[in-house]
Amino acid sequence: MRLTHTLLALLVATPLAAQDGGAAVNPDAAMLRQLYDVELTTSPAHEQLRELVTKFPGRLSGSQNLKGAVQWAHALLQSQGADRTELQPVMVPHWERGAKESVRLAGGTPLTAVALGGSVPTPAGGLTAPVVELQALAELKTTDVKGKIVFFNRPMNPVHVIPGQSYGEAGDQRTQGPAEAAKFGAAGVLVRSLTHAHDDVPHTGNTTYLPDVPRIPAAALSTLAADKLSAALKADATRRVSMEIHSQWFDDAPSHNVIGELRGSEHPEQVILVGGHLDSWDIAPGAHDDGSGIVQSIEVLRLLKAAGYVPKHTIRCVCFVNEENGLRGATEYARVAAEKREVHLLALETDTGGFQPHSFAIGNSTDNAHRLAARWLPLFEPYGITSFVSGLGGSDVHPLLAQGGAIAGLLPNSQRYFDLHHTTEDSIDKVNPRELQLGAAALASLVYLVDQHGL
Amino acid sequence: MRLTHTLLALLVATPLAAQDGGAAVNPDAAMLRQLYDVELTTSPAHEQLRELVTKFPGRLSGSQNLKGAVQWAHALLQSQGADRTELQPVMVPHWERGAKESVRLAGGTPLTAVALGGSVPTPAGGLTAPVVELQALAELKTTDVKGKIVFFNRPMNPVHVIPGQSYGEAGDQRTQGPAEAAKFGAAGVLVRSLTHAHDDVPHTGNTTYLPDVPRIPAAALSTLAADKLSAALKADATRRVSMEIHSQWFDDAPSHNVIGELRGSEHPEQVILVGGHLDSWDIAPGAHDDGSGIVQSIEVLRLLKAAGYVPKHTIRCVCFVNEENGLRGATEYARVAAEKREVHLLALETDTGGFQPHSFAIGNSTDNAHRLAARWLPLFEPYGITSFVSGLGGSDVHPLLAQGGAIAGLLPNSQRYFDLHHTTEDSIDKVNPRELQLGAAALASLVYLVDQHGL
Repeated sequence: MRLTHTLLALLVATPLAAQDGGAAVNPDAAMLRQLYDVELTTSPAHEQLRELVTKFPGRLSGSQNLKGAVQWAHALLQSQGADRTELQPVMVPHWERGAKESVRLAGGTPLTAVALGGSVPTPAGGLTAPVVELQALAELKTTDVKGKIVFFNRPMNPVHVIPGQSYGEAGDQRTQGPAEAAKFGAAGVLVRSLTHAHDDVPHTGNTTYLPDVPRIPAAALSTLAADKLSAALKADATRRVSMEIHSQWFDDAPSHNVIGELRGSEHPEQVILVGGHLDSWDIAPGAHDDGSGIVQSIEVLRLLKAAGYVPKHTIRCVCFVNEENGLRGATEYARVAAEKREVHLLALETDTGGFQPHSFAIGNSTDNAHRLAARWLPLFEPYGITSFVSGLGGSDVHPLLAQGGAIAGLLPNSQRYFDLHHTTEDSIDKVNPRELQLGAAALASLVYLVDQHGL
Repeated sequence: MRLTHTLLALLVATPLAAQDGGAAVNPDAAMLRQLYDVELTTSPAHEQLRELVTKFPGRLSGSQNLKGAVQWAHALLQSQGADRTELQPVMVPHWERGAKESVRLAGGTPLTAVALGGSVPTPAGGLTAPVVELQALAELKTTDVKGKIVFFNRPMNPVHVIPGQSYGEAGDQRTQGPAEAAKFGAAGVLVRSLTHAHDDVPHTGNTTYLPDVPRIPAAALSTLAADKLSAALKADATRRVSMEIHSQWFDDAPSHNVIGELRGSEHPEQVILVGGHLDSWDIAPGAHDDGSGIVQSIEVLRLLKAAGYVPKHTIRCVCFVNEENGLRGATEYARVAAEKREVHLLALETDTGGFQPHSFAIGNSTDNAHRLAARWLPLFEPYGITSFVSGLGGSDVHPLLAQGGAIAGLLPNSQRYFDLHHTTEDSIDKVNPRELQLGAAALASLVYLVDQHGL
């Protein structure tokens, strides 16, 4: 691209009046412009995120790094001028991966893999067994898997435009595959990583065992390793695989949701919540999942203060713990809120990556919140937010739905998200500062509008 | 993010019916679904792009690598089943950077820099002179710059949401700065790189000299180097800078626009064009700028053929040459088209990076084309294309506007584009395969709709 007609085209294509000139007319438009201006010119969010993921990568529940991140977030909320901060106690599960796992074709070729979160270890000396490749859990009923390693190799469906949809459809292999295979006597499970990327990066994530069903070891293969194993089995169906996992479960550990708020001037007992989750998988720096959501949520408080805005309702930032493998933080937060009879007008989550946002998903018990919020679209369109769709926010705010308010989530572009989700690659260099900032400003804008006008 | 409620939210937020179920009802919807399905499941585009930027990086006009790229594109169009291909002769300017340039604070500290495209060399032994830092070209009138190096250091304005707008506003420093400074007797020019990124990567780009004004050497500093120089000048306004540029101009060189087309079955003389540019800056692999546009445009032919579609009008893919420093390819293409009295119903360009597309800019002489095209939005919305805006496509199709048809450009997310634009960092690893594919399918969809229904 050069600086002539193309540029002209871009400029003509920009709703300039709406973007820069309309501010004088409408006080809401002026406030959004101010929030975006402050964020786009003075944001510390990317540097804060760099610090979080550099000092405290792998912030899995029970880890020292989660402890450090809790203290870090608490200090940051205090330094950003929260009127009140709180460390809300939560007991969290504590699983550790232990020494590096290994998976290899018998005979020696290594297959790049990571143990699934929560996996039990392999027996001493490892597990070596024949492998059965399956595409769907239903095939367990018609396949002899007894004593074998079940290899679930169904790729994410590439035709869905939204990768989250494909992730949802393929996810049963990881979340339920080991427990289901164990019902039929399998000795272990390997799962194709849940990603569209075709590379040698394995993706972890939680698996759930069932009561009264044997707990068998389980790992995810990189998509390249999955292809390699599939090809090896096609060449020789009797090929055996050896796997070693050294994980361990410990007693529940103490942790905390980290809370900071600006007290409401008119209705302090009514809360508008914005939050993300502080924990990450043990192998992941957790930059997009969900360090981005943490620094964006804290930015909402900073931006409103920087604008000199006095909120009518209490604006509360919550850094939840244990989203990845337990949701204990979300559950405890909702329990305490119910006990205190707190009213949440809106609980807004940012946990789908720090990419450029295009929409909000918003839901309530009558499923009309997205239509009500749509009246604000003209205010958001200059900033690239083009829709409010019906949806249920995210895992951490979902328990609040029952309390009657609205729950919502920021929806950014997500084509790149599942390339790095739950991997070593979820690092700071994958987060674009301006994309992160556009998310923070969008969150602050919606919080402001709900505070001013309700839903 | 975990696989529970968040996923639910994402799924609920997806217009499933529109995305996967509506196809049976409407033949246009069915065709778009088919084009997207084929592209998202079988696209060779990312691998083709890897080959282009690996074999032929730095495809500047006059270079051996551009020659190689021309042959490569021609062979690819033939292999994709174009009914007719053509190498359209174009004479292009030929400038070479020569040995690596250097810029340093007198005393030794190096400042990371690249010569601007088209810059004349420094005198033998280099240029050493005092430096005057300016923000705007207008300051030349009130500043003594005689014999000095003028340092234009106005950053791109971060508050505009669309970086292209900020690029346009700051660009005069690079395109006109050297010529304007020369009018006032300056000896050389340094320019802050045109980017929002704060790093040590310098960005080149064209500068234009004026007749009867001395041609003085000019280079761009990385934004970090620009800050370093600015700080040094604040500490000591007499600090001198040494610069060495070893560039050379040669005679115009022969090159070619590369053309491949599917012949129209009803109106072969009426053309729907889709294209990008094959050349890149000499220091850049040119993955986003504009290798992406090349492989996407070639994909349009492949996708229509794969769908078994027989176009009514001629669908023509054009790989323009010399977009970056001359527009000779675009000019020659339009001249020949006028000479042959060809009618272009639509000339569609893709030259703003291979990122996820969200809109089309479209324009014609009466500026109503974007409103006419907007009737197709319901077909595009399932794929994330949410608007048709008034605009003028891009540099290479702009000369066709005078011939009466519509010109258009694909608009992808652009926050990351100017981080790597015209740099060594514009490499294949920055291009996400699915984002690239979504662009190709969007282009094919618009071409199909215009072929079926006109504008």
